[in-house]
Amino acid sequence: MSDASDRISMDQAKRKRPLFVGIDVGGTNIKVGLVDDSGRTLAFDNTPSEVPAGPQAAVERMAAKIDELVAKCGAEKGDIAQVGLATPGTMDIAAGMLLHPHNLPGWEEFAIRDRLSEVCGLPVSYNNDANAAAYGEYWVGRGREYKSMVLLTLGTGVGGGIIIDGEVLDGEHSHGAECGHLIIDYQDDARVCPCGQPGHLEGYASATAVVARACEALETGAKSTLKESFDGGVAITAKMIYDHALAGDQFSLNVIADTALYLAVGITTLLHVIDPDAVVLGGAMDFGGDDCKLGRRFIEQIREQVRKRAFPVLAEKTVIDFASLGGDAGYLGAAGIARAEYLKKA
Amino acid sequence: MSDASDRISMDQAKRKRPLFVGIDVGGTNIKVGLVDDSGRTLAFDNTPSEVPAGPQAAVERMAAKIDELVAKCGAEKGDIAQVGLATPGTMDIAAGMLLHPHNLPGWEEFAIRDRLSEVCGLPVSYNNDANAAAYGEYWVGRGREYKSMVLLTLGTGVGGGIIIDGEVLDGEHSHGAECGHLIIDYQDDARVCPCGQPGHLEGYASATAVVARACEALETGAKSTLKESFDGGVAITAKMIYDHALAGDQFSLNVIADTALYLAVGITTLLHVIDPDAVVLGGAMDFGGDDCKLGRRFIEQIREQVRKRAFPVLAEKTVIDFASLGGDAGYLGAAGIARAEYLKKA
Repeated sequence: MSDASDRISMDQAKRKRPLFVGIDVGGTNIKVGLVDDSGRTLAFDNTPSEVPAGPQAAVERMAAKIDELVAKCGAEKGDIAQVGLATPGTMDIAAGMLLHPHNLPGWEEFAIRDRLSEVCGLPVSYNNDANAAAYGEYWVGRGREYKSMVLLTLGTGVGGGIIIDGEVLDGEHSHGAECGHLIIDYQDDARVCPCGQPGHLEGYASATAVVARACEALETGAKSTLKESFDGGVAITAKMIYDHALAGDQFSLNVIADTALYLAVGITTLLHVIDPDAVVLGGAMDFGGDDCKLGRRFIEQIREQVRKRAFPVLAEKTVIDFASLGGDAGYLGAAGIARAEYLKKA
Repeated sequence: MSDASDRISMDQAKRKRPLFVGIDVGGTNIKVGLVDDSGRTLAFDNTPSEVPAGPQAAVERMAAKIDELVAKCGAEKGDIAQVGLATPGTMDIAAGMLLHPHNLPGWEEFAIRDRLSEVCGLPVSYNNDANAAAYGEYWVGRGREYKSMVLLTLGTGVGGGIIIDGEVLDGEHSHGAECGHLIIDYQDDARVCPCGQPGHLEGYASATAVVARACEALETGAKSTLKESFDGGVAITAKMIYDHALAGDQFSLNVIADTALYLAVGITTLLHVIDPDAVVLGGAMDFGGDDCKLGRRFIEQIREQVRKRAFPVLAEKTVIDFASLGGDAGYLGAAGIARAEYLKKA
């Protein structure tokens, strides 16, 4: 009698909240989270990527980590409805294939989605890591109130993810939302992007580009409290520019203001092409974000430059703000994408 | 007996192919087409917009034209499943409202979708004219083989429409796919768009901008067979630039090549943000299109410039070509959008 009622209540619990796993593969670590139907993380851990050991070994470590997390929070593997997997590209999203991921040498042309599904015995959804981060912010982060949202991630490069009416914009060739590669300067003397092409946003607004712009100006005699370090052969970093700006160095403040301008140009293009509810900025290079007066000044400068360039109604109505999930956005979004695929099947 | 079998065969015909009406409202004429389920036009006519007579009178003329077309091809009004209506903006697509359409003075803040539905007694879908044209090309035109497509229309301005996986990108504030207003030059000295903002594609690549660029260069002494007309006070037109380019005038050829460059920059941004199967160019300013060696050279110049700026895989795989429906794209697309809404309800 008590056995039967236990079973019934467990079945009900299953029906009420299937669980999902979100996995975010990076060059150093693989983040794995067990997430419930409302986007709450029940258990989380990292497993090292160990890139040189190859993708099959990594897939086996991911599967083992899923079992560990399930045990850790007293759930059962049968509670998991679907696994979401996010990796850097290049990739074929529909085919579940890694193609040529620059950050994962040796993992080329690997059917990572189906291999993981085989090893862990669960259905697996697959997407790009930046798209997954955007979906995370859309599902349970800064974009949670909105129908459509663009995420720009500012780090070594400039990444992007676009959610329209709850759908991830994968692109027909798995290159949707490569927002770092929208063009902000058509001219022959435009800065060259690390991808080799001229005029892309990433060539102006990534941490790498911020440092490069600062060093070029210091080289040609700009006055700055950074000058002494620069002349002394110290490698300038985005963190140093941030610190000197905080201390009041006008040169560093100008480098940041220029970054805001370039981002505003890219954001204006996104407003006019996508017209989302919100554009959300994530990634490490946020100049302190909401918690710092410099970060708050940075986002206000972006909004001001968007007002100068966008249709007034869009500049007024579109939310432009920092993301809220930090480094968790990727695995949470991967879990969210798995959930969306599961709900479509159900 | 024969009555009954007639009735059955008519019912079957109805089930097999409901009809749709597509209406494309312009500043001069309103195009109305009766279109079958496969996108074939059964009957078509214009009715004058008579803008000063106001929108209610226009809606009544549209309804009368629907009745006329139905009678003309021996159909019944009951065969029509849904009407699609496309107008220029600004608008609130979801609410079915015209807001402030620059081309339709006096039609402000008019609930055109519901007014038309009341008068014609049929459900009405509503969208932007450029979005409708894109849907037309996607449904039965140059984009018919593809899942995702961008249309750029080159005329007095530069318009755009984006279809992703069969869905029109309306935007959250009815400003999706304003591709003429993506930014190609962030700099302070960028050309100013007719919308008043700097650096937008439309400020470089519309027919108006092509003429303005040519006149600026002629003013400052550029050599051209256009010079005599220009110095004589003749107003230069895009058609004249086309004619002189066809006759071999290098200056006019350069003006067109620059236009191809600006468009390629905008198209590259669209490839990196949307990653569609195809980008299709419509509108009057196609330099002769596929039927003219100048048009074929123009599209090849665009492709070449995209290859210089886009990810190689996208430059290689994305189709860039002229649209195929000409001025019919708008009403056909309006009918297609009506059909898509009808199928979602069914």
